[in-house]
Amino acid sequence: MNLILLDPPQAVAGNRYRLCPRQAHHVDTVLAARPGDTLRCGLLNGQRGSGVLHHVGEHRELDVCLDEPPPPALPLTLVLALPRPKMLKRMLIDAASLGIKKIVLLNSWKVDKSYWQTPELKAGLLAEKLRLGLEQAGDTVMPTLILAKRFRPFVEDDLKAITGNSQCVLADPSGETYMPCDLDTPVTLAVGPEGGWTTYERDMLLAQGFTCYRLGERILRSETALPALTGRLMRLP
Amino acid sequence: MNLILLDPPQAVAGNRYRLCPRQAHHVDTVLAARPGDTLRCGLLNGQRGSGVLHHVGEHRELDVCLDEPPPPALPLTLVLALPRPKMLKRMLIDAASLGIKKIVLLNSWKVDKSYWQTPELKAGLLAEKLRLGLEQAGDTVMPTLILAKRFRPFVEDDLKAITGNSQCVLADPSGETYMPCDLDTPVTLAVGPEGGWTTYERDMLLAQGFTCYRLGERILRSETALPALTGRLMRLP
Repeated sequence: MNLILLDPPQAVAGNRYRLCPRQAHHVDTVLAARPGDTLRCGLLNGQRGSGVLHHVGEHRELDVCLDEPPPPALPLTLVLALPRPKMLKRMLIDAASLGIKKIVLLNSWKVDKSYWQTPELKAGLLAEKLRLGLEQAGDTVMPTLILAKRFRPFVEDDLKAITGNSQCVLADPSGETYMPCDLDTPVTLAVGPEGGWTTYERDMLLAQGFTCYRLGERILRSETALPALTGRLMRLP
Repeated sequence: MNLILLDPPQAVAGNRYRLCPRQAHHVDTVLAARPGDTLRCGLLNGQRGSGVLHHVGEHRELDVCLDEPPPPALPLTLVLALPRPKMLKRMLIDAASLGIKKIVLLNSWKVDKSYWQTPELKAGLLAEKLRLGLEQAGDTVMPTLILAKRFRPFVEDDLKAITGNSQCVLADPSGETYMPCDLDTPVTLAVGPEGGWTTYERDMLLAQGFTCYRLGERILRSETALPALTGRLMRLP
């Protein structure tokens, strides 16, 4: 946790915020912070800065000064075939920590139907993982998450509004050209399921403006491919 | 498992190899393969190709034809501050699947001493994780693993022989320039512990020819940073 991410309802008065039990535990045990210490913090979807720690009975509170903007969003939209629950959790943390602000979880032929029924798909649990990614990265802006349980209607009717004018990149071993890098345009990145998109799905995505690129000769797990592709495509100053 | 990786001692006669219980279980349950089916396979540190499945009593055996070279090695050496055991396992799988062939696990001030005493550091367990990465990627060549339990003697006396003429990249938020991409030279990549290298350690690495670069404004977990940096630095044709 490189930043304590505060929810507006945690405000107790003026610039004073009360930490939730998880944050209080982290402050006490991992940071071993004492009253008067200054800690990095930020307001959900708002500014970030620092806060001075106070002990109020058993509670932990911060007097905050939030005068810095969050880091700029990564201009990359992720379209991800729904991974199995354990992998999904890690990938949401990764995506949020990398600065991705729009994530579509999409169905695919090779997505096990049971994945859509897992308790992990509850909005609260997903938001919790995204929050962990923000706290890791020192960011405050919660990504938007879209669940698309039906592949074809989503790709035909809704995808174009999401991709807009971005460069649409499909990571696939069938790509004849290699993955570009350091792109200076917004990107929509589609990452397939274990086993890949079907030919039908790939053709549907190509018809919506995607281009297939490959990242070398190796087949990677989705959870390895996501940061590898993001790190490659992202534009650095 | 995109490739069944066979050990030379698994040979029973000529081109016939017997699968270990883990491989046999995968072939039966995940691949649901039947006798006569052709499966991707490879010989450890050797060629890869295909094998025809036979049931021999309770055993599973392959008649193999290995006529393809493994994918080219990634010209990237990884110097990694020893992560906590759970993260280490995932990162070894990632590193092997990305094609990294030399990995140094290095001590650092912020590496918990207990990490060096965990059973996970036994050579057999580490090799098992690397093997999973190879099987994922369709590779056969086992990476070399070097355990460096003492930072200073290793960096002063041994590191130069490992880095050779490679471009030495230190991923650190203190870097004044941004991480390059698509490098056409061999690379040695140093990834620090949670919390980063100390100033002393960073200066020692700089003295050995490393340069600090930053990957954007965000602080990433080591396990996210490794594929992100590798995907960025790697040269694609």
